[in-house]
Amino acid sequence: MSDIKRMHMAARYSDTAVHNGVVYLAGQVPTDTSQDMAGQAREVLETIDRLLNEVGSDKSRILMTQIFLPDLKDYDVMNVVWDSWVVAGHAPPRATIQAKLANPDWKIEVVVTAAVR
Amino acid sequence: MSDIKRMHMAARYSDTAVHNGVVYLAGQVPTDTSQDMAGQAREVLETIDRLLNEVGSDKSRILMTQIFLPDLKDYDVMNVVWDSWVVAGHAPPRATIQAKLANPDWKIEVVVTAAVR
Amino acid sequence: MSDIKRMHMAARYSDTAVHNGVVYLAGQVPTDTSQDMAGQAREVLETIDRLLNEVGSDKSRILMTQIFLPDLKDYDVMNVVWDSWVVAGHAPPRATIQAKLANPDWKIEVVVTAAVR
Repeated sequence: MSDIKRMHMAARYSDTAVHNGVVYLAGQVPTDTSQDMAGQAREVLETIDRLLNEVGSDKSRILMTQIFLPDLKDYDVMNVVWDSWVVAGHAPPRATIQAKLANPDWKIEVVVTAAVR
Repeated sequence: MSDIKRMHMAARYSDTAVHNGVVYLAGQVPTDTSQDMAGQAREVLETIDRLLNEVGSDKSRILMTQIFLPDLKDYDVMNVVWDSWVVAGHAPPRATIQAKLANPDWKIEVVVTAAVR
Repeated sequence: MSDIKRMHMAARYSDTAVHNGVVYLAGQVPTDTSQDMAGQAREVLETIDRLLNEVGSDKSRILMTQIFLPDLKDYDVMNVVWDSWVVAGHAPPRATIQAKLANPDWKIEVVVTAAVR
Protein backbone atom coordinates (compact mmCIF):
# COMPACT_ATOMS: atom_id res chain seq x y z
CA MET A 1 0.00 0.00 0.00
CA SER A 2 1.34 3.38 -0.96
CA ASP A 3 1.71 6.26 1.45
CA ILE A 4 0.70 8.55 -1.42
CA LYS A 5 -2.96 8.79 -2.31
CA ARG A 6 -3.81 10.09 -5.78
CA MET A 7 -7.26 11.07 -7.04
CA HIS A 8 -8.69 11.78 -10.50
CA MET A 9 -5.74 10.24 -12.23
CA ALA A 10 -5.42 10.35 -15.99
CA ALA A 11 -2.47 9.07 -18.01
CA ARG A 12 -0.82 12.48 -17.92
CA TYR A 13 -1.52 13.78 -14.44
CA SER A 14 -3.74 13.45 -11.41
CA ASP A 15 -5.65 16.26 -9.75
CA THR A 16 -4.71 15.33 -6.20
CA ALA A 17 -1.81 13.82 -4.27
CA VAL A 18 -1.98 13.39 -0.51
CA HIS A 19 1.15 12.63 1.53
CA ASN A 20 2.03 13.07 5.16
CA GLY A 21 -0.98 15.24 5.99
CA VAL A 22 -0.62 17.58 3.03
CA VAL A 23 -2.65 17.64 -0.19
CA TYR A 24 -1.15 18.95 -3.43
CA LEU A 25 -3.56 19.91 -6.22
CA ALA A 26 -2.80 20.15 -9.90
CA GLY A 27 -3.29 23.56 -11.48
CA GLN A 28 -7.06 23.94 -11.64
CA VAL A 29 -8.61 25.52 -14.72
CA PRO A 30 -12.16 26.24 -15.89
CA THR A 31 -14.06 23.69 -17.96
CA ASP A 32 -16.71 26.12 -19.18
CA THR A 33 -14.61 28.60 -21.11
CA SER A 34 -17.67 30.46 -22.36
CA GLN A 35 -17.79 32.14 -18.95
CA ASP A 36 -16.33 35.56 -18.21
CA MET A 37 -13.49 36.07 -15.75
CA ALA A 38 -15.73 36.07 -12.69
CA GLY A 39 -17.48 32.91 -13.81
CA GLN A 40 -14.24 31.10 -14.58
CA ALA A 41 -12.75 32.13 -11.23
CA ARG A 42 -15.85 30.93 -9.40
CA GLU A 43 -15.80 27.60 -11.22
CA VAL A 44 -12.10 27.04 -10.46
CA LEU A 45 -12.57 27.83 -6.77
CA GLU A 46 -15.59 25.52 -6.58
CA THR A 47 -13.51 22.76 -8.15
CA ILE A 48 -10.83 23.35 -5.53
CA ASP A 49 -13.49 23.12 -2.79
CA ARG A 50 -14.62 19.77 -4.14
CA LEU A 51 -11.10 18.36 -4.52
CA LEU A 52 -10.12 19.46 -1.01
CA ASN A 53 -13.31 18.11 0.55
CA GLU A 54 -12.77 14.71 -1.08
CA VAL A 55 -9.56 14.16 0.87
CA GLY A 56 -10.63 15.61 4.19
CA SER A 57 -9.45 19.15 3.71
CA ASP A 58 -11.25 22.40 2.93
CA LYS A 59 -10.58 26.00 1.98
CA SER A 60 -9.94 27.01 5.60
CA ARG A 61 -6.88 24.74 5.59
CA ILE A 62 -4.99 26.07 2.56
CA LEU A 63 -1.25 26.50 3.13
CA MET A 64 -0.27 28.20 -0.14
CA THR A 65 -1.99 29.36 -3.31
CA GLN A 66 -0.50 30.38 -6.63
CA ILE A 67 -2.74 32.17 -9.08
CA PHE A 68 -1.81 32.47 -12.75
CA LEU A 69 -3.67 35.02 -14.86
CA PRO A 70 -3.00 35.38 -18.59
CA ASP A 71 -3.96 39.02 -18.27
CA LEU A 72 -3.46 41.05 -15.09
CA LYS A 73 -6.29 43.37 -16.11
CA ASP A 74 -8.46 40.57 -14.63
CA TYR A 75 -6.74 40.90 -11.23
CA ASP A 76 -9.45 43.02 -9.61
CA VAL A 77 -12.33 40.84 -10.80
CA MET A 78 -10.46 37.75 -9.62
CA ASN A 79 -10.01 39.35 -6.22
CA VAL A 80 -13.73 40.09 -5.87
CA VAL A 81 -14.47 36.41 -6.43
CA TRP A 82 -11.57 35.36 -4.20
CA ASP A 83 -12.62 37.68 -1.37
CA SER A 84 -16.13 36.23 -1.33
CA TRP A 85 -14.72 32.70 -1.31
CA VAL A 86 -11.94 32.85 1.26
CA VAL A 87 -12.85 31.90 4.85
CA ALA A 88 -12.62 34.84 7.26
CA GLY A 89 -9.81 34.24 9.73
CA HIS A 90 -8.19 31.60 7.50
CA ALA A 91 -6.91 33.56 4.50
CA PRO A 92 -3.90 31.64 3.14
CA PRO A 93 -0.56 32.86 1.76
CA ARG A 94 -0.91 33.67 -1.91
CA ALA A 95 1.13 34.74 -4.94
CA THR A 96 -0.32 35.98 -8.22
CA ILE A 97 1.59 36.37 -11.46
CA GLN A 98 0.74 36.92 -15.09
CA ALA A 99 1.35 33.87 -17.29
CA LYS A 100 -0.07 32.47 -20.49
CA LEU A 101 -1.81 29.14 -19.95
CA ALA A 102 -1.89 25.97 -22.02
CA ASN A 103 -5.36 26.78 -23.36
CA PRO A 104 -5.83 30.36 -24.58
CA ASP A 105 -9.47 30.29 -23.47
CA TRP A 106 -8.54 29.82 -19.81
CA LYS A 107 -8.54 33.12 -17.92
CA ILE A 108 -7.20 31.65 -14.68
CA GLU A 109 -5.27 28.70 -13.25
CA VAL A 110 -4.92 28.11 -9.51
CA VAL A 111 -2.46 25.86 -7.66
CA VAL A 112 -3.26 24.97 -4.04
CA THR A 113 -1.39 23.15 -1.27
CA ALA A 114 -3.45 22.44 1.85
CA ALA A 115 -3.42 20.56 5.13
CA VAL A 116 -5.69 17.55 5.48
CA ARG A 117 -7.41 16.89 8.78
CA MET B 1 -7.05 24.97 18.44
CA SER B 2 -5.87 24.82 14.87
CA ASP B 3 -2.80 22.92 13.75
CA ILE B 4 -2.22 25.71 11.22
CA LYS B 5 -0.70 28.95 12.47
CA ARG B 6 -1.20 32.02 10.28
CA MET B 7 0.54 35.39 10.71
CA HIS B 8 -0.08 38.86 9.27
CA MET B 9 -3.53 37.96 8.09
CA ALA B 10 -5.58 40.38 6.07
CA ALA B 11 -9.01 39.70 4.57
CA ARG B 12 -7.43 38.58 1.31
CA TYR B 13 -4.37 36.61 2.37
CA SER B 14 -1.88 36.04 5.16
CA ASP B 15 1.88 36.29 4.85
CA THR B 16 2.63 33.09 6.73
CA ALA B 17 1.16 29.64 7.29
CA VAL B 18 2.93 27.08 9.48
CA HIS B 19 1.91 23.43 9.43
CA ASN B 20 3.69 20.23 10.39
CA GLY B 21 7.12 21.83 10.73
CA VAL B 22 6.99 23.73 7.43
CA VAL B 23 6.34 27.44 6.88
CA TYR B 24 4.80 28.70 3.65
CA LEU B 25 5.19 32.40 2.84
CA ALA B 26 3.04 34.47 0.53
CA GLY B 27 4.81 36.02 -2.43
CA GLN B 28 6.85 38.83 -0.91
CA VAL B 29 7.09 42.13 -2.74
CA PRO B 30 8.74 45.50 -2.04
CA THR B 31 6.86 48.23 -0.21
CA ASP B 32 9.21 51.05 -1.24
CA THR B 33 8.85 50.98 -5.00
CA SER B 34 11.00 54.08 -5.40
CA GLN B 35 14.02 51.79 -4.94
CA ASP B 36 16.02 50.32 -7.80
CA MET B 37 16.26 46.60 -8.44
CA ALA B 38 18.99 46.02 -5.85
CA GLY B 39 17.10 47.98 -3.22
CA GLN B 40 13.83 46.17 -3.91
CA ALA B 41 15.55 42.78 -3.81
CA ARG B 42 17.24 43.64 -0.50
CA GLU B 43 13.97 44.81 1.01
CA VAL B 44 12.13 41.65 -0.07
CA LEU B 45 14.84 39.37 1.33
CA GLU B 46 14.87 41.33 4.63
CA THR B 47 11.11 40.90 4.84
CA ILE B 48 11.55 37.16 4.31
CA ASP B 49 14.17 37.10 7.10
CA ARG B 50 11.73 38.77 9.45
CA LEU B 51 8.80 36.51 8.54
CA LEU B 52 10.91 33.37 8.91
CA ASN B 53 12.39 34.49 12.23
CA GLU B 54 8.93 35.16 13.64
CA VAL B 55 7.98 31.51 13.36
CA GLY B 56 11.26 29.95 14.44
CA SER B 57 12.84 29.54 11.03
CA ASP B 58 15.56 31.44 9.22
CA LYS B 59 17.18 31.74 5.82
CA SER B 60 19.48 28.77 6.48
CA ARG B 61 16.38 26.55 6.60
CA ILE B 62 14.75 27.39 3.25
CA LEU B 63 13.48 24.34 1.34
CA MET B 64 12.44 26.01 -1.93
CA THR B 65 12.44 29.50 -3.42
CA GLN B 66 10.66 30.79 -6.47
CA ILE B 67 11.71 34.17 -7.81
CA PHE B 68 9.52 36.11 -10.24
CA LEU B 69 11.09 38.99 -12.16
CA PRO B 70 9.04 41.14 -14.54
CA ASP B 71 12.20 41.70 -16.55
CA LEU B 72 15.02 39.15 -16.74
CA LYS B 73 17.48 41.94 -17.49
CA ASP B 74 17.44 42.36 -13.68
CA TYR B 75 18.59 38.75 -13.17
CA ASP B 76 22.26 39.58 -12.59
CA VAL B 77 21.57 42.40 -10.14
CA MET B 78 19.13 40.18 -8.25
CA ASN B 79 21.80 37.49 -8.04
CA VAL B 80 24.34 39.89 -6.54
CA VAL B 81 21.88 40.72 -3.77
CA TRP B 82 20.89 37.07 -3.40
CA ASP B 83 24.51 35.88 -3.21
CA SER B 84 25.28 38.28 -0.39
CA TRP B 85 22.14 37.17 1.49
CA VAL B 86 22.22 33.40 1.19
CA VAL B 87 23.90 31.46 4.03
CA ALA B 88 27.08 29.69 2.92
CA GLY B 89 26.55 25.95 3.13
CA HIS B 90 22.77 26.30 3.19
CA ALA B 91 21.90 27.57 -0.29
CA PRO B 92 18.36 26.34 -1.05
CA PRO B 93 16.79 25.00 -4.26
CA ARG B 94 15.60 27.86 -6.42
CA ALA B 95 13.73 28.58 -9.65
CA THR B 96 13.58 31.95 -11.37
CA ILE B 97 11.19 32.90 -14.15
CA GLN B 98 10.08 36.08 -15.84
CA ALA B 99 6.53 37.10 -14.98
CA LYS B 100 4.59 40.34 -14.78
CA LEU B 101 3.45 41.10 -11.23
CA ALA B 102 0.21 42.56 -9.88
CA ASN B 103 1.81 45.99 -9.37
CA PRO B 104 3.86 47.25 -12.33
CA ASP B 105 6.22 49.05 -9.91
CA TRP B 106 7.35 45.79 -8.31
CA LYS B 107 10.62 44.56 -9.80
CA ILE B 108 10.64 41.27 -7.86
CA GLU B 109 8.39 38.81 -6.02
CA VAL B 110 9.78 35.90 -4.00
CA VAL B 111 7.98 32.79 -2.71
CA VAL B 112 9.67 30.79 0.05
CA THR B 113 8.94 27.46 1.74
CA ALA B 114 11.12 26.69 4.78
CA ALA B 115 11.53 24.32 7.68
CA VAL B 116 10.78 25.61 11.17
CA ARG B 117 12.93 24.48 14.07
CA MET C 1 23.39 17.61 12.58
CA SER C 2 20.82 19.29 10.43
CA ASP C 3 17.38 17.88 9.76
CA ILE C 4 17.68 19.31 6.24
CA LYS C 5 19.81 17.44 3.73
CA ARG C 6 21.02 19.40 0.71
CA MET C 7 22.68 17.97 -2.38
CA HIS C 8 24.65 19.51 -5.27
CA MET C 9 25.11 22.76 -3.46
CA ALA C 10 26.76 25.70 -5.17
CA ALA C 11 27.21 29.16 -3.67
CA ARG C 12 23.93 30.31 -5.18
CA TYR C 13 21.61 27.35 -4.80
CA SER C 14 21.43 23.62 -4.29
CA ASP C 15 19.57 21.18 -6.49
CA THR C 16 17.99 19.23 -3.65
CA ALA C 17 16.63 19.78 -0.16
CA VAL C 18 15.14 16.92 1.85
CA HIS C 19 13.11 17.59 4.99
CA ASN C 20 10.54 15.57 6.87
CA GLY C 21 10.08 12.94 4.17
CA VAL C 22 9.73 15.39 1.28
CA VAL C 23 12.31 16.35 -1.34
CA TYR C 24 12.25 19.75 -3.03
CA LEU C 25 14.19 20.14 -6.29
CA ALA C 26 15.47 23.35 -7.80
CA GLY C 27 14.08 24.23 -11.21
CA GLN C 28 15.81 21.77 -13.54
CA VAL C 29 17.00 22.97 -16.93
CA PRO C 30 18.85 21.40 -19.86
CA THR C 31 22.63 21.52 -20.02
CA ASP C 32 22.86 20.65 -23.72
CA THR C 33 21.02 23.57 -25.28
CA SER C 34 21.86 22.41 -28.79
CA GLN C 35 19.04 19.88 -28.44
CA ASP C 36 15.51 20.45 -29.73
CA MET C 37 12.50 20.63 -27.44
CA ALA C 38 12.09 16.85 -27.17
CA GLY C 39 15.77 16.39 -26.39
CA GLN C 40 15.81 19.13 -23.77
CA ALA C 41 12.67 17.75 -22.13
CA ARG C 42 14.15 14.25 -22.03
CA GLU C 43 17.39 15.53 -20.52
CA VAL C 44 15.55 17.51 -17.83
CA LEU C 45 13.38 14.55 -16.87
CA GLU C 46 16.43 12.27 -16.74
CA THR C 47 18.13 14.76 -14.44
CA ILE C 48 15.06 14.71 -12.21
CA ASP C 49 15.18 10.90 -12.15
CA ARG C 50 18.78 11.01 -11.01
CA LEU C 51 18.21 13.67 -8.35
CA LEU C 52 15.20 11.83 -6.96
CA ASN C 53 16.97 8.48 -6.94
CA GLU C 54 19.90 9.95 -5.01
CA VAL C 55 17.71 10.73 -2.02
CA GLY C 56 15.57 7.61 -2.03
CA SER C 57 12.70 8.86 -4.13
CA ASP C 58 11.70 8.28 -7.73
CA LYS C 59 9.30 9.53 -10.38
CA SER C 60 6.46 7.36 -9.05
CA ARG C 61 6.53 9.41 -5.85
CA ILE C 62 6.15 12.95 -7.23
CA LEU C 63 3.69 15.12 -5.30
CA MET C 64 3.64 18.20 -7.54
CA THR C 65 5.26 19.34 -10.77
CA GLN C 66 5.45 22.80 -12.26
CA ILE C 67 6.54 23.10 -15.87
CA PHE C 68 7.68 26.40 -17.34
CA LEU C 69 7.88 26.73 -21.11
CA PRO C 70 9.14 29.91 -22.78
CA ASP C 71 6.89 29.09 -25.71
CA LEU C 72 3.63 27.18 -25.36
CA LYS C 73 3.90 26.02 -28.98
CA ASP C 74 6.22 23.39 -27.44
CA TYR C 75 3.45 22.12 -25.16
CA ASP C 76 2.49 19.14 -27.32
CA VAL C 77 6.06 17.96 -27.86
CA MET C 78 6.74 18.31 -24.12
CA ASN C 79 3.68 16.19 -23.42
CA VAL C 80 4.83 13.40 -25.72
CA VAL C 81 8.10 13.21 -23.77
CA TRP C 82 6.28 13.55 -20.45
CA ASP C 83 3.76 10.83 -21.31
CA SER C 84 6.51 8.35 -22.10
CA TRP C 85 8.30 9.22 -18.83
CA VAL C 86 5.50 9.27 -16.29
CA VAL C 87 4.83 6.03 -14.38
CA ALA C 88 1.43 4.52 -15.21
CA GLY C 89 -0.77 4.65 -12.13
CA HIS C 90 1.40 7.29 -10.46
CA ALA C 91 0.86 10.40 -12.61
CA PRO C 92 1.38 13.41 -10.31
CA PRO C 93 -0.45 16.74 -10.07
CA ARG C 94 0.98 19.18 -12.56
CA ALA C 95 0.72 22.81 -13.70
CA THR C 96 2.21 24.23 -16.88
CA ILE C 97 2.59 27.90 -17.69
CA GLN C 98 4.44 29.96 -20.25
CA ALA C 99 7.38 31.90 -18.83
CA LYS C 100 10.67 33.21 -20.10
CA LEU C 101 13.64 31.53 -18.40
CA ALA C 102 16.97 32.91 -17.19
CA ASN C 103 18.80 31.51 -20.22
CA PRO C 104 17.10 32.16 -23.57
CA ASP C 105 18.42 28.84 -24.91
CA TRP C 106 16.46 26.81 -22.36
CA LYS C 107 13.19 25.54 -23.79
CA ILE C 108 11.93 24.07 -20.50
CA GLU C 109 12.34 24.30 -16.72
CA VAL C 110 10.70 21.81 -14.35
CA VAL C 111 10.13 22.09 -10.59
CA VAL C 112 9.36 18.91 -8.67
CA THR C 113 8.33 18.13 -5.10
CA ALA C 114 8.30 14.42 -4.18
CA ALA C 115 7.99 12.02 -1.29
CA VAL C 116 11.08 10.13 -0.19
CA ARG C 117 10.75 6.53 0.91
